[in-house]
Amino acid sequence: MIGPVNPPTRLLMGPGPVNADPRVLRAMSAPLVGQYDPWMTATMNETMALYRDVFRTGNEQTFLVDGTSRAGIEAALVSLLEPGDRVLVPVFGRFGHLLVEIAERCRAEVHTIEVPWGEVFPPEQVEDAVRRVRPKVLAVVQGDTSTTMCQPLADLGEICRRHDVLLYCDATASLGGNAFETDAWGLDIATAGLQKCLGGPSGSAPITLSDRAAEVIDGRKHVEAGIREAGDEAAGERIASNYLDLAQIMDYWGPRRLNHHTEATTMLYGARECARLLVEEGLDVAVERHALHGRAMLEGVRGLGLDVFGDVEHKMHNVVAVAIPDGVDGDRARAGLLTDFGIEIGTSFGPLHGKVWRIGTMGYNARTDAVLVTLAALEQVLRAYGVPLTAGGGVAAAQEVYA
Amino acid sequence: MIGPVNPPTRLLMGPGPVNADPRVLRAMSAPLVGQYDPWMTATMNETMALYRDVFRTGNEQTFLVDGTSRAGIEAALVSLLEPGDRVLVPVFGRFGHLLVEIAERCRAEVHTIEVPWGEVFPPEQVEDAVRRVRPKVLAVVQGDTSTTMCQPLADLGEICRRHDVLLYCDATASLGGNAFETDAWGLDIATAGLQKCLGGPSGSAPITLSDRAAEVIDGRKHVEAGIREAGDEAAGERIASNYLDLAQIMDYWGPRRLNHHTEATTMLYGARECARLLVEEGLDVAVERHALHGRAMLEGVRGLGLDVFGDVEHKMHNVVAVAIPDGVDGDRARAGLLTDFGIEIGTSFGPLHGKVWRIGTMGYNARTDAVLVTLAALEQVLRAYGVPLTAGGGVAAAQEVYA
Repeated sequence: MIGPVNPPTRLLMGPGPVNADPRVLRAMSAPLVGQYDPWMTATMNETMALYRDVFRTGNEQTFLVDGTSRAGIEAALVSLLEPGDRVLVPVFGRFGHLLVEIAERCRAEVHTIEVPWGEVFPPEQVEDAVRRVRPKVLAVVQGDTSTTMCQPLADLGEICRRHDVLLYCDATASLGGNAFETDAWGLDIATAGLQKCLGGPSGSAPITLSDRAAEVIDGRKHVEAGIREAGDEAAGERIASNYLDLAQIMDYWGPRRLNHHTEATTMLYGARECARLLVEEGLDVAVERHALHGRAMLEGVRGLGLDVFGDVEHKMHNVVAVAIPDGVDGDRARAGLLTDFGIEIGTSFGPLHGKVWRIGTMGYNARTDAVLVTLAALEQVLRAYGVPLTAGGGVAAAQEVYA
Repeated sequence: MIGPVNPPTRLLMGPGPVNADPRVLRAMSAPLVGQYDPWMTATMNETMALYRDVFRTGNEQTFLVDGTSRAGIEAALVSLLEPGDRVLVPVFGRFGHLLVEIAERCRAEVHTIEVPWGEVFPPEQVEDAVRRVRPKVLAVVQGDTSTTMCQPLADLGEICRRHDVLLYCDATASLGGNAFETDAWGLDIATAGLQKCLGGPSGSAPITLSDRAAEVIDGRKHVEAGIREAGDEAAGERIASNYLDLAQIMDYWGPRRLNHHTEATTMLYGARECARLLVEEGLDVAVERHALHGRAMLEGVRGLGLDVFGDVEHKMHNVVAVAIPDGVDGDRARAGLLTDFGIEIGTSFGPLHGKVWRIGTMGYNARTDAVLVTLAALEQVLRAYGVPLTAGGGVAAAQEVYA
């Protein structure tokens, strides 16, 4: 007989998912209410308002897609891109490849530019490519956990306006832990997830759309069979997905309350609480908190005598890639950390596989005790491999950052 | 300042979502664990085993799609159907139209047969259409809450085998509350949601695939850019969605543990608990419970003197459509029931809009007290409209069923 779920205690210090804030999990145990109950629609509206603060936007169209962060990415791309549309993707890690992959499945004409892993794009390089490709959409990741890099976005919005391009940004790994300015930076669509700096579980994808992005997508609205009414004239090329059709989902969250999916109410409660806690803390304060604990972890691993991967000037606050020392089996060391200390750190993908660990400090785990205990345990695990280490150097260096 | 979520107390007696079992919500507040933690992959395997019992199948490929029930439907159809493939949809309510809609967006060639709302299809009518259309897939809803009808499926599997057709069934509204036999009935794919008879919140879609369905879908596997390895040769027509690509999702849940989405762990905990409670109760016992409370509600509304819509012989156990009496404003009466008594019942779609209410008895709310209190309150609300009613007749008739 299988018993109730009974997870072991884990401190999740990888690149995400990380431990959810207990307040978020408690919010998720609240009783359900019907999806058109006045209390529920008011709660949906509150959630929209909270995410406007999180995304730093006045966008009316700010809501949740009911799926993991990847569902939000696909909703944005499949709703924007018609077959044959050109899209430009600057690829600086695994999640750039994911944007390519999803855009290809939308039957778009996908163009890429690439920099080596561990670097970001200077704005001129992006503008040159925009000039050459003349895309409908520029699709870019802000923070790519595969390399830990954080692509500067402030100039890209202006480039896109100049060339009449829509700018989509995947902020899954970065939002809440790094500066993010939807309106000030001129972003048209941004999507995220809860499981990184927002301190919740995976399963809900906050999204925001500028008026011009919403207009493009509304120009493709085909209200679905079974609930179509007089006046629901189909427009433009029908969006290839029903579940991720933002034209209809905007009408579900909007005053029309068009029947679409059945809202994932428990995830909504969680997403609402994630945003509420961030807004209560203050977005700038939260970003500063991630900067502080990220710096402490960075200096801590260096203080142990370990090397760090990539252009640290452009690192996300919330994750660091640590070179696996010679003679250490990276996966065995991770397993030891998990089994003996209950601490999880991350492996890596593609060209970095077997070369670095990725250590996160994000959301609820951007905390002093989480940083110090991880450094202390990592030192003990590496000691067993005979790696030359500065005894106590990790914790001391982190404590110096805190002092 | 927006405070923590604080929902009003509601008894949800509509066609779903209904109140989640408190044990399911409690399971969802358990702490998170990393997605490749040995405990997590073991818990995913347990969840697969539990849903095999719920779907009554030996299918290896039995897991969760991370989205609402509609995500499960789209995952099944977009993974099965290539552009130009023929699909046959017997439409007997709003959710048949939804299958049409989704299949059209897969660029399939969609054929339909229809019966009036309130009826189901005799198997001969389906076989005639299969013979005529020669579809690749027959896609059918089991229980369509828009009409309350439950389509008999036992003969359809054999028809499909005879004509070499794949049989997909949307069991969202019916699974757990009505007999459902994936293997004995020869179904190839079935999908569901948690928010009906399974007693959980919307947001996770259990799915099961027969070996032959899995083989068809595996024949379209294109491992995504960014994680593709040597030997990952692309095969067949690429599935149009990445998020709902069952070929990759099977590899995520399977021994390869291919990186795809970040599992929605809290929803997984909830889905696991829903299945665990059903299996603990016994599937047959749960179906009998739904039959009993559904009969009590049916006889109760009749005992009040109200008429019931549709072919009651083919009604789902878990929902009944009640004719709104002359002179009653259906939406105002529903609002009164909600505001004064905290009880929600359902409105209706399409040809039934304004003509019937839909009253559910499912999942955690398939209980005597929920049935009796709903009937008692409904009597009081209708009394205010001067509807001729048998005083106490609703509760009395239900109690007779229980006796």
